[in-house]
Amino acid sequence: MAQEKFVREITARDVDFAQWYTDIVLKAEMADYAPVRGCMVIRPYGFAVWEKIKEHADSRFKATGHTNAYFPMLIPESLLQKEVDHFEGFSPEVLWITHGGDEELAERLIARPTSETMINTMYSKWVQTYRDLPVLINQWCSVFRWEKTTRPFLRTVEFLWQEGHTVHETYDDAQEETLRMLEIYRQVIEDEMAVPVILGLKSESERFAGADATYTLEAMMHDGKALQSGTSHNLGQNFANMFDIQFQDREGKLATAWTTSWGISTRLIGGLIMVHGDDRGMVMPPRVAPTQVVIVPIAQHKEGVNEKATDLFDALKDRFSVKLDDRAQYSPGWKFNQWELKGIPLRIEIGPKDIEKNQVVFVRRDTNEKSFVPMENIADAVGDMLDTIQKDMFEAAKARREEKTFSVDNFDDFQAKLDGQNVFLKGMWCGDAECEAEIKEKTGATIRCIPFEEEQEELSDVCVHCGKPAKHMVYYAKAY
Amino acid sequence: MAQEKFVREITARDVDFAQWYTDIVLKAEMADYAPVRGCMVIRPYGFAVWEKIKEHADSRFKATGHTNAYFPMLIPESLLQKEVDHFEGFSPEVLWITHGGDEELAERLIARPTSETMINTMYSKWVQTYRDLPVLINQWCSVFRWEKTTRPFLRTVEFLWQEGHTVHETYDDAQEETLRMLEIYRQVIEDEMAVPVILGLKSESERFAGADATYTLEAMMHDGKALQSGTSHNLGQNFANMFDIQFQDREGKLATAWTTSWGISTRLIGGLIMVHGDDRGMVMPPRVAPTQVVIVPIAQHKEGVNEKATDLFDALKDRFSVKLDDRAQYSPGWKFNQWELKGIPLRIEIGPKDIEKNQVVFVRRDTNEKSFVPMENIADAVGDMLDTIQKDMFEAAKARREEKTFSVDNFDDFQAKLDGQNVFLKGMWCGDAECEAEIKEKTGATIRCIPFEEEQEELSDVCVHCGKPAKHMVYYAKAY
Repeated sequence: MAQEKFVREITARDVDFAQWYTDIVLKAEMADYAPVRGCMVIRPYGFAVWEKIKEHADSRFKATGHTNAYFPMLIPESLLQKEVDHFEGFSPEVLWITHGGDEELAERLIARPTSETMINTMYSKWVQTYRDLPVLINQWCSVFRWEKTTRPFLRTVEFLWQEGHTVHETYDDAQEETLRMLEIYRQVIEDEMAVPVILGLKSESERFAGADATYTLEAMMHDGKALQSGTSHNLGQNFANMFDIQFQDREGKLATAWTTSWGISTRLIGGLIMVHGDDRGMVMPPRVAPTQVVIVPIAQHKEGVNEKATDLFDALKDRFSVKLDDRAQYSPGWKFNQWELKGIPLRIEIGPKDIEKNQVVFVRRDTNEKSFVPMENIADAVGDMLDTIQKDMFEAAKARREEKTFSVDNFDDFQAKLDGQNVFLKGMWCGDAECEAEIKEKTGATIRCIPFEEEQEELSDVCVHCGKPAKHMVYYAKAY
Repeated sequence: MAQEKFVREITARDVDFAQWYTDIVLKAEMADYAPVRGCMVIRPYGFAVWEKIKEHADSRFKATGHTNAYFPMLIPESLLQKEVDHFEGFSPEVLWITHGGDEELAERLIARPTSETMINTMYSKWVQTYRDLPVLINQWCSVFRWEKTTRPFLRTVEFLWQEGHTVHETYDDAQEETLRMLEIYRQVIEDEMAVPVILGLKSESERFAGADATYTLEAMMHDGKALQSGTSHNLGQNFANMFDIQFQDREGKLATAWTTSWGISTRLIGGLIMVHGDDRGMVMPPRVAPTQVVIVPIAQHKEGVNEKATDLFDALKDRFSVKLDDRAQYSPGWKFNQWELKGIPLRIEIGPKDIEKNQVVFVRRDTNEKSFVPMENIADAVGDMLDTIQKDMFEAAKARREEKTFSVDNFDDFQAKLDGQNVFLKGMWCGDAECEAEIKEKTGATIRCIPFEEEQEELSDVCVHCGKPAKHMVYYAKAY
């Protein structure tokens, strides 16, 4: 058979994790470098994953009463400066638009790094009485941050995200919304992407600029580092005060509103790769896989094979996203390699012997396990297998995280555990930002989150670093 | 009943069409002005229409083998200057990004006005052999044009659109794609939006910068002006030459590819309003209506009314997008006004007398016709009614267009027909760009398109303006 040799060209994960990551991104055709500094092109295969994530998130947003809208990308300088703390948080990485055609603009514009200022300006106009509340609006768009060091999906000058912005009558309503969206993110990330996350509160120094409280979902990558996978902010009355979002309350008095914002981004795709990928390529969890099943006929030149493969395709195509790879110019082995690189969750082989026995062969991408499956009720068998793969991928990722999570009660142990490796460390913290900064300086590890109360453990009475009375148990880790 | 009076505040369409349009946009909460020059906020109700249009278009793109991707918004100056004709077409309205944080950029960037330059740069890297063809990629994004005069949806500094960019082996393949996408746009605009369009070729002076041929869909607005509603370009080898999109052909020789691009935008929503809206507000065609049916209970304080209205809602909610307006603080009349303003295609009233007779009342938004409909098989009756409304709205719009379309064979008649009114004029044209420019200068009318051959009529042997031998019959009109 005259065909090119399949060249995988993926660096081994344990040899050079960063290069392995880049190899997967490029070779699986998830993204490519663009001819503009710090930007990437999201290629169709990577974008199809984003479309799945979007569907899973958007349907949940809508089911909880949210609607989508679109606000301008261009933000006048004066608007951003209204919320000084917030502006200072973003100004070093803001992109400035200064000219339109040949003419210098009367006021400089920035490319939005986030839309609190723009959206809250509109909300102050739209919100008049308590009857207008809550306002529950989301937008899917791209945002811009002039980052120095960039990597596809993980940190780019432009990235895609959704940003929800809501307005409420009371603090309690805002807090409930903040946590509701955090839970929706947990469902999308854990239940759809099979990536386990730890939920909790950010320390003050890691908080979003202008927020009262930032909640986060932290995932562990295969190399033991953390990836912040989504955030939900209770903005208190900070933005409502700055942007005059006031309303006539139920007693007829003028009241100041409470706002929230929350977001997830294409960064999640970077996390998906770094949690599930292996040395043979990407591994897609079935619920976000652009293609869930690939059918590869064996000895397809023999009579009846392609016909049976087509029958199989027809039996599956309405329930699953399925591809029939009957290209004559490539060998089955070549095809196996290609679809493994792309991470298609389930491969089905069908050849003359299988046809004789009225069966097919299932090969799981996640475990490489092979099984023989009768042709009867094949669609149900595929459905069950995809469910199993989805569940097992989540459990495997969780087990890997647990293996690399340690409790520490003294700083020697803390440093020893981080020596030459990346792990999650559970340890006590005094609550002091200076102490937190010292830990970061000494070890590179940051406080990823203060996990929710029900997960708090009393590992010791004192801070793992300074020895002063401890306030919380926290997760420490190096992070992307 | 203590309630505020419903204030519609819409200027009559025949008194001031431009103000009527703005009133509908703002009062129906389709969009709002943003605090940045020339930009709008697309509010949830307007955005929901865009989501419907997107679904209708995107599913057709995918059914014809296209996939979505995302390319950077930022385009380096050097890239844009590679295709000089193209750049000159856009440079007066380009937005320039000159600084990142405090630092001046080494190379200025522009905010994309369209993505041919960026996308074709990537294609030159991705396309190696004929096996890589065709490339069929689309992106949904926003684009930027620093326009002087702007109007919500019709012309804004930033707008949402999709841009398809494809690469082919042969001219024929590219031409077939160009026309395939034009037909998909026709289906979306006519079959889903109920807006009749005339399909044809643009004259050379109205052609997209860098295209060999631009095809268009032209709709007539209620005031008789034309709106270009979508375009599909056969780019020949112009971009492939500039960006080196070459491939090994079936004979093993190096060949230059053929490309196309095609787009529709949020401008379509402006067209939807100007074709279907009336003095009572927006009128939504059922297939793009965010809410298709509103149920208004009559005398809802009476026993059993709200229960029956809820039963009705439950009977419809799985098949249609339906709203039950059982707010106690507003009268039925107030609600009628509100939902008429929003343009919900079908209102269903249900009161004690209807319940007695086991019927409901249908009120069509498009014709205001009332009918009594038995409760049995109500969902089927609603489905039929929505289909009827959809069809009738299209036919009514087409009839209005035909009423305002005239054939002319001399320039006196041409000018007389355009005197004090806007109409579509069918007339002969010599094919000369200078003659075309003179017509525009004298009358304000431009050549909207050279309709497809099958619609060509031989109105005369000579050009309606200069009297030289005629080449085509064309549509002339003033346009948005």
